[in-house]
Amino acid sequence: MRSFIVLGHRAALTPDFSLNDLPGSAGRLDILCRCVTAAFCLSHGIRRDVTVYLVLQNQLVIRLEGARLKHLNPDERSTGALLQKALKAHQEHPESEIESTPGIFISRGTLSDVLARVRERVYVLHEAGRPINGIVFPQDVAFVLSDHLDFQPDEEALFKDDARLSLGPLSLHADHCVAIVHNHLDRAQFANRTLLV
Amino acid sequence: MRSFIVLGHRAALTPDFSLNDLPGSAGRLDILCRCVTAAFCLSHGIRRDVTVYLVLQNQLVIRLEGARLKHLNPDERSTGALLQKALKAHQEHPESEIESTPGIFISRGTLSDVLARVRERVYVLHEAGRPINGIVFPQDVAFVLSDHLDFQPDEEALFKDDARLSLGPLSLHADHCVAIVHNHLDRAQFANRTLLV
Repeated sequence: MRSFIVLGHRAALTPDFSLNDLPGSAGRLDILCRCVTAAFCLSHGIRRDVTVYLVLQNQLVIRLEGARLKHLNPDERSTGALLQKALKAHQEHPESEIESTPGIFISRGTLSDVLARVRERVYVLHEAGRPINGIVFPQDVAFVLSDHLDFQPDEEALFKDDARLSLGPLSLHADHCVAIVHNHLDRAQFANRTLLV
Repeated sequence: MRSFIVLGHRAALTPDFSLNDLPGSAGRLDILCRCVTAAFCLSHGIRRDVTVYLVLQNQLVIRLEGARLKHLNPDERSTGALLQKALKAHQEHPESEIESTPGIFISRGTLSDVLARVRERVYVLHEAGRPINGIVFPQDVAFVLSDHLDFQPDEEALFKDDARLSLGPLSLHADHCVAIVHNHLDRAQFANRTLLV
């Protein structure tokens, strides 16, 4: 299982935004949409062994489970529409977690709640981290990423220093980081399988 | 210099499509938009040493030059709007190349024309290629990628067999391939610089 926890520091908490303006009125929801695509979408299929947690303003959590996910297309707008549906479902049923469309769950929650929930070893993708190359990852692993804003001090405080990993010398968009991490793990797992044969 | 040549087999040749429907009426222009973002957009800046060639139905070429590029944002819709502007400019001035917005040029052209133009060593990102790891790339390098459709036989015929490189064991979206290639080259160049210091 691979999990990606993406922090949307300004992301909309209500569905009253235009799908024509995901970067603006939706609070850079475009970034989160692209992270969802990078986490799940293969050229001709969905990665079923992936879970994505979108943490919106440290108040709401949208969880996407690859094993149950339906209706996901790779473009930003249709993913934005799925997230908008989730926000609408939460507005109508704010008291408990609700599955707004197959595989997409929304509830109140914080980054701490998500970290308490995930069973995988947690790493943080951070420019100041150790290089990812050479690290041997367990089968089950979770990565925390921030949107266009830096991690806040209260977020940093939740992680151990050695959890921070860097993907390279440049500061990249979160969705590109997800694609690079997947590739890193895909190649490592393939090499391991080949060695075992 | 790094160049990315992306084949849009069904991409719109005229601007009469809706920005609300980049995957549909625009012929999977969403893929090309995401490739543009992956090629140019860093977390807080533009890669100026990159050129992207979008080859639309092997009839039109939209060339984006990082050194001159303006008005590029990372979201799909605003990139789609820039490409739509280019198609409109071509419709009004079909006889010669035109710069529709700073750094974006459009003209009639084919994949062959682009390959004749680029001076970089050309590689093709292809599931059946050699693994990219271990390959030492020159400073100037170009990569050809296909959209959601496979390379066609007449396209394949333009490349040498040893030009084909694979990024890993799974078939990935073109924009994710661009992000992975950039990261591969970034790390290699950084390692070289560090060795030279």
